[in-house]
Order: sequence, then structure tokens, then C-alpha cells
Amino acid sequence: MYSFLNDYSEGAHPRVLAMMNEYNLEQNRGYGQDIHCERAKEYIKNLIHRDDVDIHFIPGGTQANMISISAFLRPHQCVISADTGHIYVHETGAIEATGHKVFPVASEDGKLKAKDVINVLDLHGNDEHMVQPKMVYISNSTELGTIYTKDELESLYNVCKENGLILFLDGARLGSALMSSKNDLSMEDLPNLCDAFYIGGTKNGALLGEALVIVKEELKEDFRYLIKQKGAMLAKGFIMGIQFEALFKDKLYFELAKHANQMSKKIADVLEVEGYELLQEACSNQLFLKLSNRILKEMDKEFLYVVNGKVDEEYTSIRLVTSWATTEESVNALVNFFKRAKSLL
Amino acid sequence: MYSFLNDYSEGAHPRVLAMMNEYNLEQNRGYGQDIHCERAKEYIKNLIHRDDVDIHFIPGGTQANMISISAFLRPHQCVISADTGHIYVHETGAIEATGHKVFPVASEDGKLKAKDVINVLDLHGNDEHMVQPKMVYISNSTELGTIYTKDELESLYNVCKENGLILFLDGARLGSALMSSKNDLSMEDLPNLCDAFYIGGTKNGALLGEALVIVKEELKEDFRYLIKQKGAMLAKGFIMGIQFEALFKDKLYFELAKHANQMSKKIADVLEVEGYELLQEACSNQLFLKLSNRILKEMDKEFLYVVNGKVDEEYTSIRLVTSWATTEESVNALVNFFKRAKSLL
Amino acid sequence: MYSFLNDYSEGAHPRVLAMMNEYNLEQNRGYGQDIHCERAKEYIKNLIHRDDVDIHFIPGGTQANMISISAFLRPHQCVISADTGHIYVHETGAIEATGHKVFPVASEDGKLKAKDVINVLDLHGNDEHMVQPKMVYISNSTELGTIYTKDELESLYNVCKENGLILFLDGARLGSALMSSKNDLSMEDLPNLCDAFYIGGTKNGALLGEALVIVKEELKEDFRYLIKQKGAMLAKGFIMGIQFEALFKDKLYFELAKHANQMSKKIADVLEVEGYELLQEACSNQLFLKLSNRILKEMDKEFLYVVNGKVDEEYTSIRLVTSWATTEESVNALVNFFKRAKSLL
Amino acid sequence: MYSFLNDYSEGAHPRVLAMMNEYNLEQNRGYGQDIHCERAKEYIKNLIHRDDVDIHFIPGGTQANMISISAFLRPHQCVISADTGHIYVHETGAIEATGHKVFPVASEDGKLKAKDVINVLDLHGNDEHMVQPKMVYISNSTELGTIYTKDELESLYNVCKENGLILFLDGARLGSALMSSKNDLSMEDLPNLCDAFYIGGTKNGALLGEALVIVKEELKEDFRYLIKQKGAMLAKGFIMGIQFEALFKDKLYFELAKHANQMSKKIADVLEVEGYELLQEACSNQLFLKLSNRILKEMDKEFLYVVNGKVDEEYTSIRLVTSWATTEESVNALVNFFKRAKSLL
Repeated sequence: MYSFLNDYSEGAHPRVLAMMNEYNLEQNRGYGQDIHCERAKEYIKNLIHRDDVDIHFIPGGTQANMISISAFLRPHQCVISADTGHIYVHETGAIEATGHKVFPVASEDGKLKAKDVINVLDLHGNDEHMVQPKMVYISNSTELGTIYTKDELESLYNVCKENGLILFLDGARLGSALMSSKNDLSMEDLPNLCDAFYIGGTKNGALLGEALVIVKEELKEDFRYLIKQKGAMLAKGFIMGIQFEALFKDKLYFELAKHANQMSKKIADVLEVEGYELLQEACSNQLFLKLSNRILKEMDKEFLYVVNGKVDEEYTSIRLVTSWATTEESVNALVNFFKRAKSLL
Repeated sequence: MYSFLNDYSEGAHPRVLAMMNEYNLEQNRGYGQDIHCERAKEYIKNLIHRDDVDIHFIPGGTQANMISISAFLRPHQCVISADTGHIYVHETGAIEATGHKVFPVASEDGKLKAKDVINVLDLHGNDEHMVQPKMVYISNSTELGTIYTKDELESLYNVCKENGLILFLDGARLGSALMSSKNDLSMEDLPNLCDAFYIGGTKNGALLGEALVIVKEELKEDFRYLIKQKGAMLAKGFIMGIQFEALFKDKLYFELAKHANQMSKKIADVLEVEGYELLQEACSNQLFLKLSNRILKEMDKEFLYVVNGKVDEEYTSIRLVTSWATTEESVNALVNFFKRAKSLL
Repeated sequence: MYSFLNDYSEGAHPRVLAMMNEYNLEQNRGYGQDIHCERAKEYIKNLIHRDDVDIHFIPGGTQANMISISAFLRPHQCVISADTGHIYVHETGAIEATGHKVFPVASEDGKLKAKDVINVLDLHGNDEHMVQPKMVYISNSTELGTIYTKDELESLYNVCKENGLILFLDGARLGSALMSSKNDLSMEDLPNLCDAFYIGGTKNGALLGEALVIVKEELKEDFRYLIKQKGAMLAKGFIMGIQFEALFKDKLYFELAKHANQMSKKIADVLEVEGYELLQEACSNQLFLKLSNRILKEMDKEFLYVVNGKVDEEYTSIRLVTSWATTEESVNALVNFFKRAKSLL
Repeated sequence: MYSFLNDYSEGAHPRVLAMMNEYNLEQNRGYGQDIHCERAKEYIKNLIHRDDVDIHFIPGGTQANMISISAFLRPHQCVISADTGHIYVHETGAIEATGHKVFPVASEDGKLKAKDVINVLDLHGNDEHMVQPKMVYISNSTELGTIYTKDELESLYNVCKENGLILFLDGARLGSALMSSKNDLSMEDLPNLCDAFYIGGTKNGALLGEALVIVKEELKEDFRYLIKQKGAMLAKGFIMGIQFEALFKDKLYFELAKHANQMSKKIADVLEVEGYELLQEACSNQLFLKLSNRILKEMDKEFLYVVNGKVDEEYTSIRLVTSWATTEESVNALVNFFKRAKSLL
């Protein structure tokens, strides 16, 4: 079977694993205070052209979200999210478990717009009987595979700054967003366009690890206490340092994301040519499409994918994901299938 | 000025206050373990024809909601609410502050339907990446002044029971619901149609206090610990006991609610006759209507009310509330105003 | 039976209740934004000679503690308390339920000393694997009936200021502390010697209510949101305003506390003369003493009190409490009993 | 420098890493639902002779503690711990952050005794103004390097069962405890002597991972929801499965712990012979000793260790830790140092 289930089915990229092997018996300080974490932070700081940020390596995305949000907000404050946002839908209430409401905004494409934020602020006013919106959560690429343009991000950040809101960017799939052919954002833009963001390792070549970058000065204080309190301070934190060192030493991170996107684009191009219906614009390593159940029945014989939901009696919405580990061979097999299956559309 | 702002502008009904005066220097046990609380509980048990329920007096509605919900749920479970629900909108995130998501369902009339609950269950399935729906929160009368019919409540409770969900009824304005001319529910129906509910005192003649009735056996254990932990166990708990004794000794509670509804009905009848637009069915002591800004400008000279929001450039949505303390005189003044103002519609 | 159980067995002092009667049918704004709350705040501000503080009326002491502590601390910070402190022992984990550790310090007399705080700071250092001490909680009078001298409070506050800690004073029994014959603190000292404190009404003549005074500027922001979120914003907040108006309009508050102390002193004097063993210095309206079980057997026939614990096979530790409502008659009865019972010592 | 700082300075044991390399490009299901997790669970079930337990792999010890405790308790319940316990001292308030008090009991040797638990129960009674003790937390080996005998554990568990308490065993260093020459507990005893426990991987050869074993039926329900909510469900959960597979396939886990203990014993034997003062019995891979500052000054030239605290002006308490990675060479160097340094005692 060829798998298009997700971007975390394999272990680490071989070059990442090679570095873990290389340093395996070296003695390192615990809790992320080692030389590899330091080096990885330097690589990232150079990439974003900012030396004044704090960087922390966090094992997973849900942890990065819940630690940041609970660290940055006071108890009566909420975070605004698209109703497709990972924190609203797929973290088993992790944010609420830290005491904060996630205020959802309906979104067709997985993105929040500046206007959405203004509407939420208008709705809440300064009414002390309601939660106080204080943070905006976005993901790039989004849970629907779409990406933010520089313009969109600027508008959003301007609204946040004008209203004293914190803008937080979940970059679990940041590599894929930045390597999109439709992207006009660069790594060095990010610290100028949000208050904190993270660079996802788990879904782009690492075994685990997200590099959280805190830009805004007021958000930095005592952050390591919060990492520890939420159980995210690995004793062997250096295993995240080594992996990010491998990923950013020579831009492996971007190569991997680029490959994933190319594999996805190859599929998307055929889908478009052949007349299949994409439910979201094809930008990154996730494709959402509507397929007839007859096609899916055939597809199930060779391919793995995620079913998102029933569209109607005859059609189903599915997700296909590519990764650094997706082979040309599997993409060719899928592409050929879609060509053949066209007749069943 | 005549006030139609809310149903908690005055102190206690004179007969309630009289009883507080009567027992003022009597010595009572603390923390709600006194003879007045006992008597009040007996009156209520008789009314609902159930001796096997636990009753607790809680100072306020937000407390009754947050204590019950956090006592009844495990950490990964959420409560379903209409998106107009008090817990979703007007408790400054009190429920989330106890760690639980409030899952909102869009509602035009403030009510949840059986079908809504099924949809939420279908959406969540048994996906451990999502919160687990375990409780349904409704209010009667609702935040929009509407009420549940016996049929509606039965359908809802059936769905809950079939799916292992707890049904919780916020009765901050239960008196007004039960005394509605459109109501077909009785006090004794309630313990058969939900797992826990409360009988609101604050908005119907008491200085403070809600009588929480826990019907379902599994929800009763150690509940007083939770009351204490959330700061709701008054040292002088007997002041709530005395007030509920006064309210239920001879059905004063229902008289007061009936009066509030009659005052409201008088207004609603005129509004309908004169062609004003009611935004919700007029059932209880709250009326929601759409008025032109020209009318409101006149109305502001004599009357107090709550603005709910702008409908468009010319129209505004407002709320009028009556209570046990609303006088015929003030209602006549308002009714006359509406008659006069018709020309400005 | 004569009761020395506690200081909250009766309703309100008659002059307090009279004012509640007087204003009962007056219409007031909800949620503590009424004229009575305003007036009561003015009286208090005048008393403490400070116009720049924020004052909030909170229904109970546990609420005042949990709202303040959770509002003032970030998630990784803890509050230091004597191991006899109300928040450590008698609030069913209310503080921990808001996410914060209460760090206990062993105390013989219920008081925290400057040196205790330094020890806790030394123990924690800046170790991010431990909670960060950020607040000191004291009560005056304490849970053991003792009181702080001005010197002691100054030393404690100096240590707090030097180390960036917040000093919070639980004044559930502040009246009794300030009216103690051994007291050298005044109301106007308080805002200069701590960052926030409250003036307890429940145990000194009110039905319910504590007046929380926030002195430190940084602690004031958005405090009403927190009151609401924790369920402590009474719809009819004016009932607390009226009561504090009554208590502070003409110093009734201090008269009541003085009476309670006098009743207690009368008992303590006899106990000392007759050779009974007091377990704590007699300062305020609470007395802790060690009595033989033979004496208690006799005492049980006429008097109610709280047993604190077994000292050994023959002796028991008990608490006696007086209040504004304690009569000379009951004190005389008790004093006579102790004189008679001396032979059973 | 020779390091005796901790047991997590190196990466994984080479045989563990070899297996990670072997399976690196294999495609696996996410979130711990893969074949390696299954196999590792089977190995563990065979070892403990129990097929009816639930096993979950959790990245770290703080997470295992906080997820279990918050999953097993209701909001008003507390967990009892030695005052040296990891959850009380070194988790930055992680347990309190989930809402639960950790009730500390003074302990000289890091262990809790049956009598301690009874005392805590007596102290709390059924007083709803206090937290309700419901769980006992112990660690084996303890934070002071001591271990529980079978007798001690049986007594503790009996008290727990008689009083409806849950017994939870933190086994971050379980390997070292079970391989101690003074140990009389076996893996198969564990499920009979506690309700849940974990087998620590991080400190015994793995990069990360603790295998949590839930024995008691009532504690199993929906546990994966809690893992997800607290951010501990790794997308690539199979990396823990592979490591535990490597550790338990052929008892590597016990070999590694045995080595660590042997290295420690070699040091302890010399310390005893030469007359050094051990502060705790030498049982496992941690040694606590008192050294003069003159000796430490010399020791600092060659060896790394953790300072626990000042004993007095002349003496300091330190901790030495050995691990699977500790070499004979480094132990010989340390032993020789202690022989030489004797003159400075």
C-alpha cells in the first residue's frame, strides 16, 4: 500500500538520524541546556536575522500551543482561532484544560482575517461578563493546507498591535508553507509579523520537536518554568537540539519541505488537468478533494488516506498528505490511478 | 425613570425580608447545615414529589453552573450549550477556567434541540483527539426569554440518556418559565426530565441564592466539597435557607413569577396589537424587540432597558425585563409610550 | 445552651439589617456598581487615608483568597503560607484548584516571620524545576487568634518588597485584630504595609461580604473580570454595599469587634487567674485552651465550642469564639463555670 | 572530567539506538497505535504475568505523574507524597497546575510508611472544608536512592485498599530499584501491590519514554484522551515503542540497571571502608554523602556531581549518580580519589 495518510509515518530523515548516531555517547547537560540546542538556536537566529529572540525546543505541537497560550494569557483572557484551528478541534481541549476559552471564528479556508478579529473585539467590547480576547492563534500552513500571504499576515498583525493582542503562529507545517510556490513570506519576515511562532520539526524530518521562537520581550519571562510545569522539558533535551542542528545546519529543513510540496504539486496538477474537484487551493503538502465513493472503493485497494467526511450520498471529502519521505514511485502510482479513475468521476 | 433593565434591581420581596428579620438573632449552624435550609429542602422535595434528591443552596447562577459542571465531568469532557447560553457567553469563561470546553451550537431561539445533540456526537465520534461530549446545558426560560415544552425536554433527555450524557438545566429564571401561559411543564416533571437543575432565587424575590437539585445518584457524591472548594459555601448559609423557606412555604415563588409574566404579557400584547416586531416569542418575563432609533431616542427620556445590538443603521435590538417588583404604573407608562410612539415605527 | 462555636451563628447586626430594610425597594444597578458600594468605598478610603486604592466587595473569604491569588500570580508561581493558614488547611484546595501551590511553613503561633520567607526563597533559588515563590499570605488575626505587631508586619513587608513578593493579608477577622488591646496597627497603616488586604464583614456583623482593598497598582488591572469568572460577582451586589455602608458610616465595625474582644478578654482573664492553660496568647476573639476531659464532660451540658484535637489521653484542645452577638450573660455563665470547674483541672 | 551528575547525560543505549536505525524508514501508524508499541506492551505484560493491564508510553516522568494524577482524581481530592517526592519538589507545581493539592509528609529516607497515610487520613477525617486524600504517590527507587521492601509496599497497599486510596508508583528509576542487591520485589509483584506504576526508560537506556501500567480497572477509562489533552501523545509514538521493544525484548533493561548499580556499589563500598559518611543507605544508582569542603575543592578538578545543600560551614551534602553509561574507568578514578582524599576528611 502507498500511504498518503500523514507526514509523520516514518522516523527521522537519514541525515537527522545520522547526527543522532554521531553524538549518541557524548555527554551533554540535561533539560535543553546543551551545546546542540545552543548551536541549533544560533542557526535559527541567523536565518531569521534576529538575535534578540528566545528559542525553546518543545517535544510536540499541542504542548507548544498549550504552554505558550497559558503562559501568555491571564486567567480571564481568551484566544481567537479559526473554527478549523488545531487548538479548537484536535487537542482534546488542551487549551481549555489550562483555563482559557478558545473563541472560534467560522472559516472556509482555515485562515483568520483581520476583519474577523475586529468582529470578535466588537462583540466583546469591555464587558467584564465576557472573556477578554487577548491573543490570536493562526497556523501556517493551515489545517486545510492553505497559506497566508505576506499581506494577509501584515493586516492581521496590524490589527493585533492596534488592539493589544498577541499574534501567535503555529508552524507545525511551517516548512511546507514557506516552500509553497504560492508563498511570498520568508523566515526573516516572521519575527516582524507575529509575537511568537514555532518551526515544526515533527512533520518535517525530525523524530519530535518544535522550535518555539518568542519575539515579544514581555512574553519571554520565566518561560522555562512553564515548559517544566507542563511536562515538556525533556531530560535529554539535547536530542531535540541535535535534530534541529541537523535540520538547519545546511538548510535540510527547506529541502525536505520542498520535496513534500513537489510531490503534492505533482498530484494536484494531475487532479486539476483531469477535472477532479479540489476543496481547497493546492498550496502545500496537504490536498483536500471530493471524490465519488466509486473512486474511493478502487483507491482503497492501493492507497491509504484520511477520510474527512461525507459530502453527500455519493461523494466523500478526503485528505492526501505528502512528506519528505514520500517517494516519486508512490506519487506516480497515485497519479496514474487518478488518470485511470477519471471515468468513474 | 421606569426601569425594565433586569429582574435584580431591588432587594428581597417584603415577605422574604420579613422572615430574615424574624430569624435574624436566632443562632444557627454554619455552612448550610441549619434548620431553615432543611425546611426549605423539604418544601422543595414536596413540590417535586421526590424525596431521593440532594438539594444545595448556592449563592449565584454562575457558581451553580461552574460547580456542577466541574463536579460532574472528567477533565477531557465538554458540555454542549446553545451559543446564546449563559455559560458560553456571559460568565467570563468560568467553565473553561475549571478546565472544560463549552461546545457551542448555533441557536436562533436560545434552545437546544435533540437533533443538535446528535450532530455534536456525530462530529466527535470516539476521536480521542477531540473533547468528549458528556453533558448538555440548557436554560429554562432561556437567555432569549423562550421556554421548553414538555415534548422538547423529553426528546432532549431521551437523546441524553441513550448516549450517556448528563442533562443539566439552568433555572435562574425557572419561575418565569413555569408560570408562562405557554408552559406545559410542572415542577414535578423536572426531576424526571433532567439529571440536575436549579431553581433561581436571585431573579425571583431573593437577595441571593439558587436551589440546586441533583437527581441522578452518581452525581451526588462529595458535592459539598466542591461547593466549598469553589468558594460558594457561605458561612451564614442559613440566610439562603430562610429565603427559600419564605419563597416555598406558601408558593410565594410562583406568585412572584406570575406577576412578572403578567406585566410582561401586558406589554407584549400591546406591542403585537400595535405592530411592533418581537424578535422572540413572548413567553416569559423577558421581551426582545426591534425598535427604530427614533423611537429609542424618545424612550430614553423615561425608560431604562438593555441594548442588545445594532440591527442595521436604523434599527436596534433591545431587551425589556419585568420582575416581581415591576409596578402596574410603570407598565402602563410603557404601554402608553408604545401606543404613542407607533407613528415613529 | 450558650454558644461559643464561632462568630457567624447569627444574622446581621440590627443596625446593618435596618439599613438593608430601609433600602430594600430602592432600585440599584447590578453587579456592585451602585451608590451604596460607592459610599462604602468612600468610607473605607477615608479611614485608610488613601484615595488611590481599588476596593471590591466579595461575598466570602475563600472567594476573596482564591480570586486574589489566582489573579495576582502567573501559573508557575506559588504562595507562601503558615501551615495553619486558612488557604492551606480549610479551603478544600481552593487555591490549588486555580493551579497554584500553597507552600506551607511550620508555625507555632499562626504567624509568618520575615525569616520564614527568606528560608523559602533560599530553598527555591531560581530553580525552574521548582515553583517560584511570588506571594506571601498572612491572616490578621490569625487562625490561632494571634495578631501581628506593626514591627512584625513591617519586617515581613520589607522582605517582600526586597524580593519582589506580593504581601496579601486575609482580614476575615481584621476587626478583632485591630481592636485587640495588644494591637499597635491602625487601619491607615495597612495600605502601607501590604499590597492587598481585606476587611472581613461576615465575621463582624454582616450577613456576608469582605471588602478587598488592592493597593499595588499592578494588581488592579481587570480585577472585576476575575471576580465574575470565579462566580463572586453578585447580581445584587448592592446588598454588600449597604452592609458595609452601615458598618463604616459611623464606625459600627469597630464597636462590634471591640465588644467581641471584651467578651473574650473577660473569659481569658478568669482562665489565667484560675490557672487554666491557654495554648495561644489571648489577643482577639478566639481563645485556644487545653482542658481535661473531665472538665469538658461538665462543660458539654451548658456550652457549645469547637474541639481542635486530642492533646493526650486526658486532655483536649478546644477553641472558644466570641462575637458582636455574644451576651454578657453567656460570658458570665462560662466564667462561673470555669471558676467552679477549677477543681477538676 | 568524569561525570556523576545524573543518569541522562548520554543518548540511548547502542542496542536501543540500533533498533531505531533499523526501523527508521518503516511506515507506522501514528499516536502510539503501531506494531512496536504493541510488541513492547506484550513483552511487559509477559514480564509482569498480567494480561489485563493497560499500558501507555508517555514521553517523560513529570507527564506520567501529572496525567495519571489528574486522570484518577476528582477536583476536591489530593495526593499524599513524601516531602522529598518528585511531584512535591521538582515538577514546578505540575500537579497543582492540574488543580490538585499534593499533601506532603515529612520523610527522612524518601519513603512513605503505612502509618504516615493513616495519620493523614485521621487529620482530614471527612471534613468537607479540607481536601479529601484519595491517592498515595511513592517512587521506587526514591529521590534519595532508597528502595521499598516487599513488606513495606504490602503494608502501604493494604492501608490504601482498606481506605479506598489509589496507590501510584513512580518508577522513573524502577530498574535500579529492582536490580538492587537489597531488593526483594519482582516485576510480577508490582501489579499486585499498587494500582498503577511506570517503568522508566529515560533514566535507563532510552532517549525518552516511560511505560505506564494501569492495573486497576476503574482507572483505565478514556486514558488516551488525557494523554492527548496534556500534550503527551507523540505523533511518532512508535519511537517509544521501538525503544521499549529493544529494552524488554531480551531483558536489556535489567542489564543496564544492574550495571549502574554495580558501579554505584563499587563506590559505596570504598566510601564505607574508608569511613566516609553516607546520608542514605546505599541501595541503588544514587549515593548521597556528606563531604568536607576541602575534599570537594579537590574533587571539583576531576569530577562532576550535584550539590544538594550546605550541611554546616565545613560540610556539604552531595549526590553521585551512575548509569548504564558509567564506565569502570571513571569509577576507578573516583574510587582512587576517595582513597587519596581520606586524609582531608
